[in-house]
Amino acid sequence: MNIKPLGNRLLIKPIVEEKKTDGGIVLPDSAKEKPQRALVIEVGSLEDDYDINKGDKVIFAKFAGTEIEMNDEKHIIIDVDDILAKVED
Amino acid sequence: MNIKPLGNRLLIKPIVEEKKTDGGIVLPDSAKEKPQRALVIEVGSLEDDYDINKGDKVIFAKFAGTEIEMNDEKHIIIDVDDILAKVED
Amino acid sequence: MNIKPLGNRLLIKPIVEEKKTDGGIVLPDSAKEKPQRALVIEVGSLEDDYDINKGDKVIFAKFAGTEIEMNDEKHIIIDVDDILAKVED
Amino acid sequence: MNIKPLGNRLLIKPIVEEKKTDGGIVLPDSAKEKPQRALVIEVGSLEDDYDINKGDKVIFAKFAGTEIEMNDEKHIIIDVDDILAKVED
Amino acid sequence: MNIKPLGNRLLIKPIVEEKKTDGGIVLPDSAKEKPQRALVIEVGSLEDDYDINKGDKVIFAKFAGTEIEMNDEKHIIIDVDDILAKVED
Amino acid sequence: MNIKPLGNRLLIKPIVEEKKTDGGIVLPDSAKEKPQRALVIEVGSLEDDYDINKGDKVIFAKFAGTEIEMNDEKHIIIDVDDILAKVED
Amino acid sequence: MNIKPLGNRLLIKPIVEEKKTDGGIVLPDSAKEKPQRALVIEVGSLEDDYDINKGDKVIFAKFAGTEIEMNDEKHIIIDVDDILAKVED
Repeated sequence: MNIKPLGNRLLIKPIVEEKKTDGGIVLPDSAKEKPQRALVIEVGSLEDDYDINKGDKVIFAKFAGTEIEMNDEKHIIIDVDDILAKVED
Repeated sequence: MNIKPLGNRLLIKPIVEEKKTDGGIVLPDSAKEKPQRALVIEVGSLEDDYDINKGDKVIFAKFAGTEIEMNDEKHIIIDVDDILAKVED
Repeated sequence: MNIKPLGNRLLIKPIVEEKKTDGGIVLPDSAKEKPQRALVIEVGSLEDDYDINKGDKVIFAKFAGTEIEMNDEKHIIIDVDDILAKVED
Repeated sequence: MNIKPLGNRLLIKPIVEEKKTDGGIVLPDSAKEKPQRALVIEVGSLEDDYDINKGDKVIFAKFAGTEIEMNDEKHIIIDVDDILAKVED
Repeated sequence: MNIKPLGNRLLIKPIVEEKKTDGGIVLPDSAKEKPQRALVIEVGSLEDDYDINKGDKVIFAKFAGTEIEMNDEKHIIIDVDDILAKVED
Repeated sequence: MNIKPLGNRLLIKPIVEEKKTDGGIVLPDSAKEKPQRALVIEVGSLEDDYDINKGDKVIFAKFAGTEIEMNDEKHIIIDVDDILAKVED
Repeated sequence: MNIKPLGNRLLIKPIVEEKKTDGGIVLPDSAKEKPQRALVIEVGSLEDDYDINKGDKVIFAKFAGTEIEMNDEKHIIIDVDDILAKVED
């Protein structure tokens, strides 16, 4: 299945970071904060002055966008204005 | 009966996905999340830069649009901006 | 008495559909949902790109517009943008 | 005393309709709905495409405008966009 | 002390009208409605199409503007759009 | 330390007015109303049609702007549109 | 890791000021006000008329922006319009 975002939207896949407490305990999902990093999976028809491409790693605004399930994994369709920054490792 | 959406609206028909719990129990309607996929039944007078046509499968924003009944089935009249993505199987 | 809507407003008359429960009981008025279909009685000074005329049957947004009484029947003065679709039988 | 509305505002005087219940009882003021018809008393500096003049009978949006007292009678200063329709008897 | 309103604001001084009940009792201040008439004391730099000048008597929108004290009397700095009408005696 | 407001903002310093009750009691700070007069300390890059300069005394909208501490005194960074009037003694 | 803000956003690092009570007690983090000063770490693609650069010290609007963690230190991605002033020591 293939999802093509419309307009200036993106399909992103949140990067779930393992998180330990100070004491070294791995937290279950519900106790973690919402992830803020994501991988860009698919790009809609953005205007030229946006420099975001498939495969980029980005930081996105918490609670923005619409969650959908695709191949049993959580993805988000999100407006390009809710992408705050690009991450370069 | 024929319904012709006005302006940049669409008539869509939600695709109800059967959903089982992890334990294999089929959930009754009220326990399911709102469906997010739909089939485009009829298209209003969209501007040219929208690439959505009758028969497309789309993902739409939850709670958007107005539900109407047509031939005893639930349909939604929805603004094109609430169509988030196209789905290609 | 004659009512001429101003600007891009319409005068419409809701079509009250008789509604029975599954068991065949006719519901009293207060138990029915608000009707969503209406007949266009009078049209204001709409811009050209709206294709709505006297006598059209339309679907309108619930709770939109202002109810008025005319010849002892409920009518609604409504903005053309709250007309969602035209109905062709 | 003379009141000249500013900008695209009008001075209107609500038409109080006597109202009887089905059983023929005349309702006291507080039990009536807010009146929706009014006489146009004075017109501000409207743009040309509004066709409203002194002496017209109009329907106005409930709760719109500001009530003022003038010669011991209730009047309303109201924006022209809250005038919904003209009434012709 | 001299106060010069900035932009399209006015300095006005509400006209407190003595008010008696039907029985002839003069109401104390707190039992009166907010006054709606005022005298224009000072005018900011209004655009030309506003015809309001020092000394005009006006009707203003209740609760609009900011109250200030000047020479121990209550004045209001108010936006010109909250001036509803001019009063000519 | 020097603070330079950005865009059409100003740095102002509220003028705290001593206030006595009618009986002559000086009120403690918490019992006073918020001060509304201020001295303009620094001006951002205002457009030409604003006539506000360092050293002006102004009246500002209550609760507008952001309080900051500078040299142990309360100052406010405030948008020029929240400056209501200039005061000339 | 490198974070590049998109559009007219900045990456800033709040300057945590040690704060003592009047009695000389150092307050724990939760009892302090939110810091309002920050160092500009990285600048997005601002329009020319903004004069903000890497290394500037700025005052920013409380509660604005999105907190992210970078090298185990709290940073904020913030819109340039929420930068209130520049600080020059």
